[in-house]
Amino acid sequence: MIIVVSPDASQEDVQHILDRIEESGRQAHLSVGTERTIIGVIGPDSPELQDMFETMAHVESVHRVTKPYKLVSREFRVERSIIDVGHGVTVGGAALAVMAGPCSIESEDHIVETAKAVKAAGANILRGGAFKPRSSPYAFRGLGVDALRHLATARTVTGMPVITELMSERDLDAVCQYADIIQVGARNMQNFMLLDEVGRSKRPVMLKRGLSATIEEWLLAAEYIMAQGNPNVILCERGIRTFETAYRNTFDINAIPLVKELSHLPVIADPSHGTGKWGMVKPVAMAAIAAGADGLMIEVHPNPDHALSDGAQSLTYSSFAGMMRSVAGIAAAVERSLPGVETAAAAR
Amino acid sequence: MIIVVSPDASQEDVQHILDRIEESGRQAHLSVGTERTIIGVIGPDSPELQDMFETMAHVESVHRVTKPYKLVSREFRVERSIIDVGHGVTVGGAALAVMAGPCSIESEDHIVETAKAVKAAGANILRGGAFKPRSSPYAFRGLGVDALRHLATARTVTGMPVITELMSERDLDAVCQYADIIQVGARNMQNFMLLDEVGRSKRPVMLKRGLSATIEEWLLAAEYIMAQGNPNVILCERGIRTFETAYRNTFDINAIPLVKELSHLPVIADPSHGTGKWGMVKPVAMAAIAAGADGLMIEVHPNPDHALSDGAQSLTYSSFAGMMRSVAGIAAAVERSLPGVETAAAAR
Amino acid sequence: MIIVVSPDASQEDVQHILDRIEESGRQAHLSVGTERTIIGVIGPDSPELQDMFETMAHVESVHRVTKPYKLVSREFRVERSIIDVGHGVTVGGAALAVMAGPCSIESEDHIVETAKAVKAAGANILRGGAFKPRSSPYAFRGLGVDALRHLATARTVTGMPVITELMSERDLDAVCQYADIIQVGARNMQNFMLLDEVGRSKRPVMLKRGLSATIEEWLLAAEYIMAQGNPNVILCERGIRTFETAYRNTFDINAIPLVKELSHLPVIADPSHGTGKWGMVKPVAMAAIAAGADGLMIEVHPNPDHALSDGAQSLTYSSFAGMMRSVAGIAAAVERSLPGVETAAAAR
Amino acid sequence: MIIVVSPDASQEDVQHILDRIEESGRQAHLSVGTERTIIGVIGPDSPELQDMFETMAHVESVHRVTKPYKLVSREFRVERSIIDVGHGVTVGGAALAVMAGPCSIESEDHIVETAKAVKAAGANILRGGAFKPRSSPYAFRGLGVDALRHLATARTVTGMPVITELMSERDLDAVCQYADIIQVGARNMQNFMLLDEVGRSKRPVMLKRGLSATIEEWLLAAEYIMAQGNPNVILCERGIRTFETAYRNTFDINAIPLVKELSHLPVIADPSHGTGKWGMVKPVAMAAIAAGADGLMIEVHPNPDHALSDGAQSLTYSSFAGMMRSVAGIAAAVERSLPGVETAAAAR
Repeated sequence: MIIVVSPDASQEDVQHILDRIEESGRQAHLSVGTERTIIGVIGPDSPELQDMFETMAHVESVHRVTKPYKLVSREFRVERSIIDVGHGVTVGGAALAVMAGPCSIESEDHIVETAKAVKAAGANILRGGAFKPRSSPYAFRGLGVDALRHLATARTVTGMPVITELMSERDLDAVCQYADIIQVGARNMQNFMLLDEVGRSKRPVMLKRGLSATIEEWLLAAEYIMAQGNPNVILCERGIRTFETAYRNTFDINAIPLVKELSHLPVIADPSHGTGKWGMVKPVAMAAIAAGADGLMIEVHPNPDHALSDGAQSLTYSSFAGMMRSVAGIAAAVERSLPGVETAAAAR
Repeated sequence: MIIVVSPDASQEDVQHILDRIEESGRQAHLSVGTERTIIGVIGPDSPELQDMFETMAHVESVHRVTKPYKLVSREFRVERSIIDVGHGVTVGGAALAVMAGPCSIESEDHIVETAKAVKAAGANILRGGAFKPRSSPYAFRGLGVDALRHLATARTVTGMPVITELMSERDLDAVCQYADIIQVGARNMQNFMLLDEVGRSKRPVMLKRGLSATIEEWLLAAEYIMAQGNPNVILCERGIRTFETAYRNTFDINAIPLVKELSHLPVIADPSHGTGKWGMVKPVAMAAIAAGADGLMIEVHPNPDHALSDGAQSLTYSSFAGMMRSVAGIAAAVERSLPGVETAAAAR
Repeated sequence: MIIVVSPDASQEDVQHILDRIEESGRQAHLSVGTERTIIGVIGPDSPELQDMFETMAHVESVHRVTKPYKLVSREFRVERSIIDVGHGVTVGGAALAVMAGPCSIESEDHIVETAKAVKAAGANILRGGAFKPRSSPYAFRGLGVDALRHLATARTVTGMPVITELMSERDLDAVCQYADIIQVGARNMQNFMLLDEVGRSKRPVMLKRGLSATIEEWLLAAEYIMAQGNPNVILCERGIRTFETAYRNTFDINAIPLVKELSHLPVIADPSHGTGKWGMVKPVAMAAIAAGADGLMIEVHPNPDHALSDGAQSLTYSSFAGMMRSVAGIAAAVERSLPGVETAAAAR
Repeated sequence: MIIVVSPDASQEDVQHILDRIEESGRQAHLSVGTERTIIGVIGPDSPELQDMFETMAHVESVHRVTKPYKLVSREFRVERSIIDVGHGVTVGGAALAVMAGPCSIESEDHIVETAKAVKAAGANILRGGAFKPRSSPYAFRGLGVDALRHLATARTVTGMPVITELMSERDLDAVCQYADIIQVGARNMQNFMLLDEVGRSKRPVMLKRGLSATIEEWLLAAEYIMAQGNPNVILCERGIRTFETAYRNTFDINAIPLVKELSHLPVIADPSHGTGKWGMVKPVAMAAIAAGADGLMIEVHPNPDHALSDGAQSLTYSSFAGMMRSVAGIAAAVERSLPGVETAAAAR
């Protein structure tokens, strides 16, 4: 950490800061410049320490020098993590992971039929919501444990591993009983108790970025999970909140290459939430793979205008299949693969 | 709800939309204009219904006409809610509520001493954190249940009701045992399970606005609590996340008058988090009261540069007392009172 | 336009609104629902009219139904615009336009050498700044008209058309004398006088999106240019300002498909400004082309750590050439071409 | 400036950075820590220099230590600037400056009548738009020079100094001929040529903050004006663009105390644009004065629902007079005055 001292500080004021550094168990390294006096604090950085120094009299600014996360960083682990999610599927390798399915599971038939359709189009992981976060208490909030059972049935029928969102510590056991990957949603990205719990579960976790979370906060949330001993963390960029109202969220394409530079964890792109409009899902999915994402999460519904939630961003079976062919072309261009999907060009 | 039909829609396309409206149990009212055909949907609005119509072919846009919340609105309840938080203190009346204390409770002595100091300066509710949401898993996360006990001791000593943050359903009973007001923090504003639970508890709840929550989402979160039968909801504006990096958050002063126009619930201002800098707490506190806030939540620490959390935004005893005198002057100008506090002018 | 009347309005209040509509030269269409009374306003929409109705007593909300721009819209022109920028280069066709060169022109040698290098790597338009917008008055602000002459020399040497930024109406003639495309920068996107002037010039114009401009405002700025009779408008997405501080700007990938849906104008992506970090330029350039952008604008400098401006986001010759090979692979996958560039795969 | 070296840098790599520092005419101060090597750069900071070092290999991050502006800072001038705007009115002293009038000047009668009304209510500066920035080319753009003449007539009639917006260098002479204060609007805050020109004019300038301008960028824009020898700069906070859609802009109350801490220049608050809703103007005006603003800019129209622009945020004569009485109460509480205005309390 580096402390920049105010120009008005006396020698005594500087000594007071030096004393406080020593008190914190760190060493100080003083450097007197023409414009400012600067103190290097030698020893581990922390946001708390930064906070503390910022309150002190005659401190102009405090700069952290090291990153606040460790286990998720590429300094900690150089090679990329490949997460085994069971049923022969991994996330983070050369083959792209494509998670597809409905926003909410509406019935057993609904999820089984959708599972077959997305598998036929090349998806390799089934998504489906049992517990749904809804901004209104009067909206449909999911079928709960019944939906989990339907999801498991769809897995049996198709052989695909399944992912579903966990919204409460209370439902952890139920979700672990049925799901291969636990999803932590954007609104719970900083539900720290939940992060601790899924960390303790050791089950693969997909952690969505919060609506206004910085990259650093997102990686720190992943650090919570890893700090409990669970290395199986998948990140998911799903759009951030900006001033733009033409789409529900703004997909942050910059996040893909930056996260892959900072962390060894795989990153999935969710263009369904990242745009909120089904007509934009395909081009943004293609963009995300071009930028280096390790896979996609896509909402698919047999009949989007009858969906119980998020219909506006859901693809039909046929538009999903079309998207997959286009994505396959991009995948080939970036030396990734989408097994079993013919590219749009090849299909002609 | 109003549906605007695309100019390219045929009569058949329009009929298809009309059928879908009827299917949803609503009535349609067709209006053919020179530029666009517009369909009024008669019956209750919902975000889900909006979503559904937005996915339909030949629908250009869908506009909601009614607000998605009910119980929190001034249409539901015209007179302002005054929340009794016990120990003779109410929130929402002519007398301002001032909640003050440390970010984290560090020891019994620490909270008792601080409680006495803030009471002497005119605070009427004691705040103190037992469970702390921290962006890093390696930061100090609070003393937990021990801290709750210290808080209760401070209440006994000073007679002030106490408020503390609840981060997990798991801790609801413990928090209810010791605290007069349950705080739901900004990061949990859309932790819907937690909202349901505090709604069922009937205990007064202070709901902080999320970092990037719209006013509508914030009121809907309050609706979650009221929908479970708990009318004792206090809102708290604590700053939003914007592009500006000169302060930790941007206090949204506009929210104060707008929320008071839309809702009957009282609104507290938290300029400590709303600025993140102790030097800006006083002017922003004064501004919030001038704009109509029903009270303040202020971080106070005997020795901010030794605080275990959020020192940068904490006031000392003496700066808190100075702030209270300045706020009292503003309170008088807007016909509110701060019992027991002499204004800065009177003090001269 | 649709006016939603407050539930508390009397029949007289509604009549007052109806009278005001008639006064404005439009017709009213009344629709009385169970929850709200709605008035359709038949006749052309305008933001001013919306404004006016919003101020009226007993008006709850006003919704615009038609888009505020015309000439730039796909309703006005169905086929895509292809802009001829001279020297045999077009923007908006199957071949991608790649504009490359230094942020600032530092000398004749500097721009001529860079021009040759970027042409060799496959660029087809030369960029170079003569007048530089700088947030500080003490920063290097460009060589001005001398730089324009150097740019023209580089065009003569390489045969590539050139683009440069115009910052003031005063310099319009000088810029038109030397440049093939006039760039209007992000900070001038709503400099309406400048938009009028470049509209009158008829010269091809590339209009960058403002740092916090909505898609609608951006298209309206293009409408200013077209309304003066200049159809040769190229849009350029260069990143928006969000809460994220890990990159200088957040490249808005969603804007690419949406603008292409709303408008017939071509769209260029500027990942140099869109990220602010040279290491992220290649993946975001690839993403933009995958999402449907018609070309790229890239900062290239022979020696970025000696650049007089924006070194942090500039590519070296060799990293630019590498980027071009990767982009060529994506271009092929989306049926676009990058003439003269071998794909990364083919190069192996 | 401080350069943090990557942990992977060899001794040679560090030497390369040291050489580059020397080449730039600065001195280097090396400090080898346990976690990172840090280099202090002794000599003047600049954004360009920061940029340059950020591009270098083995540089992890670069931190600026000094502020990039000088003349506007309180280090340069300790006492507060009081700007004499003529006709006996100053901005920045104990008496608040209240600029009021219509968004656009619609006729001589319109501005003269409004001028009398706002003067009667206590305003001391008349505002009125002659050249209007409008997002649509089809909207009313002001009466131009005719409006300037009407404004001058209103000044003659009432004796109040007048302020109007300048949108183009071309109109500088005309505006200087008629106006006492030149307004630079939010959309032109970084129109650097215009800033240079108004700097050279020496006329008092009110510089509005851009929609997404940081405090630092705003102060740098003021620095542009002062660097041309014009010390008569007034800042104006008018709301920023955020994710919130419930109001047109989000008034940034935090900016008031921060700017007054960083700069000696006076700050005016514009709650009309800062909220975009007339019903919120009064509480936000009161808040701004409570937070330390030196005055207000308020849109007033005889008949807001017939205004040619910005009616939604305009006050009527009577609501303006009511606001002034409420503001006078706040002014008294913060030891400022509003000459000739009775407080709301006194009026009872």
